Amino acid sequence: MSRIVVLRLGHRIIRDQRLTTHVLLTARAYGADEGLVAGERDDELLNGVRRVVENWGGEFKVNYVEDWRKVLRDWRERGGKIIHLTMYGINLPDIIDEVRSLWRSGRDLLIVVGGKKVPGELYSIADYNIAVTNQPHSEVAALATFLDWLQEGEELRREFKGGKLKIIPQRRGKRVVRID
Amino acid sequence: MSRIVVLRLGHRIIRDQRLTTHVLLTARAYGADEGLVAGERDDELLNGVRRVVENWGGEFKVNYVEDWRKVLRDWRERGGKIIHLTMYGINLPDIIDEVRSLWRSGRDLLIVVGGKKVPGELYSIADYNIAVTNQPHSEVAALATFLDWLQEGEELRREFKGGKLKIIPQRRGKRVVRID
Repeated sequence: MSRIVVLRLGHRIIRDQRLTTHVLLTARAYGADEGLVAGERDDELLNGVRRVVENWGGEFKVNYVEDWRKVLRDWRERGGKIIHLTMYGINLPDIIDEVRSLWRSGRDLLIVVGGKKVPGELYSIADYNIAVTNQPHSEVAALATFLDWLQEGEELRREFKGGKLKIIPQRRGKRVVRID
Repeated sequence: MSRIVVLRLGHRIIRDQRLTTHVLLTARAYGADEGLVAGERDDELLNGVRRVVENWGGEFKVNYVEDWRKVLRDWRERGGKIIHLTMYGINLPDIIDEVRSLWRSGRDLLIVVGGKKVPGELYSIADYNIAVTNQPHSEVAALATFLDWLQEGEELRREFKGGKLKIIPQRRGKRVVRID
């Protein structure tokens, strides 16, 4: 299966900690293989996400990147496709079939999620600029919906192996079991 | 069409401002009719969302609620259903058809999104406790995916009428037109 990597641009310590955490945890829960964070280096953030992986399983990796332009260049050189999620792009339902075909035929996808200010060059570097509704909302929501449509909902039934904790779904209340 | 209202619990000024804004803007962009915020009263937050509605159109309302338990009681008395989004609930793909049938047959839906600490009683008050993956991630992602599956993607093509700004989707770059 080809890879899905999510790159978060322009992270700022403290101010973006919760939103970037939501971006990364959403990437993991919705089936991405790796999360990359550019901007300010924030080891506490990355370690927090790593603890989630230890506890809840799966193979999700997170890493800081110093030079995101190099990440994009290398990605393209290796034949991967670059998707930029932006409210100004082509609306998801009009483009997802094309992207899904590329992915299913073996192309790795790098999904770029901006912060407050996205460098203008990103719009021309990306293979696809994709919007989820062309309305202002949230990079977390856009990422979730992109990943969900890409994988046609299969990701919601994914099992995360090797964790210490597992939820047994309940109609009422909470049930978490510890796996030894 | 029956109504969709999103209730955000436990809002805290400053600390939750961005995430609650993302919850509300996601609610709007994904087709909800109204957003309610419980917790600390935060007029700046509500006015920020109202400005988005003025600029980008549509009929989305936001309001503060003092007593969320009363909102739930009144909702139920008027025949509406209460959905609580929680990682401990039944996984979305296993329950969405049932909820969608209720909604399409005319039941209003109140979707409750917790903050850090959700009062335990909510699990028994809700008609449905629904998870999106049973993995830890983001209430913004969970709300987006719930609304998307409920409406089977139709919400992504919705037009927002009466705004001042409109995006013309582009493969490269940004194009926003002002509507006079």
